[in-house]
Amino acid sequence: MDERQSPRRPGGRGARVTAAVHQAVTDLISERGYGMFSVADVAARAGVADSSVYRRWGSLETLLTDAALSGLNTRSPMPDTGSLAGDLRTYAAAVAREITGPDGPALVHLAIALSKAGDQGLRAREELLAARAQQLQSMLDRAGERGERVLDPLDVLDHVLAPMYIRVLLGVDQLTPEYVDGLVDRLL
Amino acid sequence: MDERQSPRRPGGRGARVTAAVHQAVTDLISERGYGMFSVADVAARAGVADSSVYRRWGSLETLLTDAALSGLNTRSPMPDTGSLAGDLRTYAAAVAREITGPDGPALVHLAIALSKAGDQGLRAREELLAARAQQLQSMLDRAGERGERVLDPLDVLDHVLAPMYIRVLLGVDQLTPEYVDGLVDRLL
Repeated sequence: MDERQSPRRPGGRGARVTAAVHQAVTDLISERGYGMFSVADVAARAGVADSSVYRRWGSLETLLTDAALSGLNTRSPMPDTGSLAGDLRTYAAAVAREITGPDGPALVHLAIALSKAGDQGLRAREELLAARAQQLQSMLDRAGERGERVLDPLDVLDHVLAPMYIRVLLGVDQLTPEYVDGLVDRLL
Repeated sequence: MDERQSPRRPGGRGARVTAAVHQAVTDLISERGYGMFSVADVAARAGVADSSVYRRWGSLETLLTDAALSGLNTRSPMPDTGSLAGDLRTYAAAVAREITGPDGPALVHLAIALSKAGDQGLRAREELLAARAQQLQSMLDRAGERGERVLDPLDVLDHVLAPMYIRVLLGVDQLTPEYVDGLVDRLL
């Protein structure tokens, strides 16, 4: 395998640097908030050189996006339960758990922060959403291959994810399991 | 009329102070952003004493909420077209115009800012949402009185407002008139 294309192979130095840098990003977001720290702050916290961060990620915005996706993929991988209803219910429940947890609706806060960070930020926001949309699309494609209904990822965004995000952002009511399941049932 | 209960009667000194203070709030949000200015900054910008602001509004959070509601009521009053479909379509189109305009989804940004401002902020956020929910409820009540379908304001939030807000916050697609009308039609 070409090492250049695999900077995060398990156990290598690249993987250790990535883990340390991601952790530093997570800590700085929680301590200072978006817009209140730089690549230099991240590098210092992770104990690596600024140049290592720039070489690997190119910009703060790309790093923020990579760290967010990595965390999401670890904590909330797309489910594969064997049915569309099962997948959507499991996915919706995981998102509800995530956005009502200590970090709140982190993906939305990140998207807002990136939208204030110029062209670099807008590109990173686009990559972030494209990556999550791609994962969601794969889940919906599996349903299609099983002969189940074919849904558009944007319908899932509009009618399952958006209501949960907005209720959390506005502080309206609780996301009970009945409510979350109800959003999925209504979409299906 | 009791003057104490009507500090914003048209043309009075109270009305002039309110207008100047609201304008100062709008300017400071746009120039510095939430969390980056105080009651003293607002008072200085509006040319009034700090004590006048505290006497009238009590806290920065209440002032932010009052200014936001006042702006919304002026720019986006609840429609009364004579039919539920007409009201919802007009309302949704006005919200779409508002949140894709220069101030963006200001109500969501304000709610997020208030959620970081302690108990005072959480109370102000609750008052903000209660005021808008009450206006929406009145519109839906008129439909009920005409013998039309009775909708829950939370269904309008979940399936008309939330998708538009999230698409703007995440930068996903445009809010075309067809899309906005489609959200209303789907709810109805």
